[in-house]
Amino acid sequence: MARRNRELLLLRHGIAEERLDQLEDAPRQLTPEGVERTSRVIQSLVWLDLTCDLVLSSPLVRARQTAELALAGGLAPELELAAALAPLADPLPLLERWLGPLSPRPGWRRLALVGHEPDLSTLAALLIGVPMAQAPQALQLKKAGVALLQWPQPPQGALPGSARLALLLPPRVLLGRRSPNAPSGG
Amino acid sequence: MARRNRELLLLRHGIAEERLDQLEDAPRQLTPEGVERTSRVIQSLVWLDLTCDLVLSSPLVRARQTAELALAGGLAPELELAAALAPLADPLPLLERWLGPLSPRPGWRRLALVGHEPDLSTLAALLIGVPMAQAPQALQLKKAGVALLQWPQPPQGALPGSARLALLLPPRVLLGRRSPNAPSGG
Repeated sequence: MARRNRELLLLRHGIAEERLDQLEDAPRQLTPEGVERTSRVIQSLVWLDLTCDLVLSSPLVRARQTAELALAGGLAPELELAAALAPLADPLPLLERWLGPLSPRPGWRRLALVGHEPDLSTLAALLIGVPMAQAPQALQLKKAGVALLQWPQPPQGALPGSARLALLLPPRVLLGRRSPNAPSGG
Repeated sequence: MARRNRELLLLRHGIAEERLDQLEDAPRQLTPEGVERTSRVIQSLVWLDLTCDLVLSSPLVRARQTAELALAGGLAPELELAAALAPLADPLPLLERWLGPLSPRPGWRRLALVGHEPDLSTLAALLIGVPMAQAPQALQLKKAGVALLQWPQPPQGALPGSARLALLLPPRVLLGRRSPNAPSGG
């Protein structure tokens, strides 16, 4: 039974409220600018024919809001929350399940993952073969930035090193010129 | 003496004449479509503030034509041909010279390299730390595609694994929707 080529679209959450002493991390929301820029990135992804079968999202508010914008913008028809996409969690077992022979949905072609930094860029680096020690520094994923990973053939064996990076997009490429520096942090 | 952050903009040559039995590889020219798409990519790069201090280009005709379009489009003011960017050559010694303390031009900030596949994507993969055995499969650089590598700090020691990938762009992201498949090959 031939499986089709598969792709993962990694989408970092948009610009969120600053992390102040009094504010816990999990409930931080997207700012109005974050909502606006994220929505425009999602429109561009739809326009580039990068629609997905499903969005898997970190359960943290700023990620879930980003995933909900993806649904509202037509990037994908459904959303599932996945604790494995929360900060510091390990997403590899989740991906092994989705990319393996017992995938929850055997027919999927492209899956969107919404999450955080440095987790998402570390994941992308590992999947294309960067060793763990260097993976967190190998790629840069900006807020509302996008990476597209491809498996021209179904992965055999371990996932690290099995994928090819086809796209790495800071939002300004989709939105226009460089914007004033946004606050950093994941 | 502090050196500024440095970036390499890798630009694959545009769509070129097919490689027929009778046609040698070196003199293959860009097609009219290749000229048009490459020029539009270059305009987008200028618009994204990705202008360069210099273009270093493979001496093969299709690469040199791409580099000349970069000059004509205002991406860089000067062009040098570099045999180290020809197919199958090793560009690392050239880059060690440019990125090292005895750089031919100490003050440069961003250098464009125009060359071929799989050489350019292999180079990008090596620079972000993918081991040699996996590097040729780790990234995909389409014709007139672009990759941007950054050194937030000057590299210490060996170049492989010293850079960060900030951008990987197939031309269709800059030019619009997916175009009919172009012929493949470097």
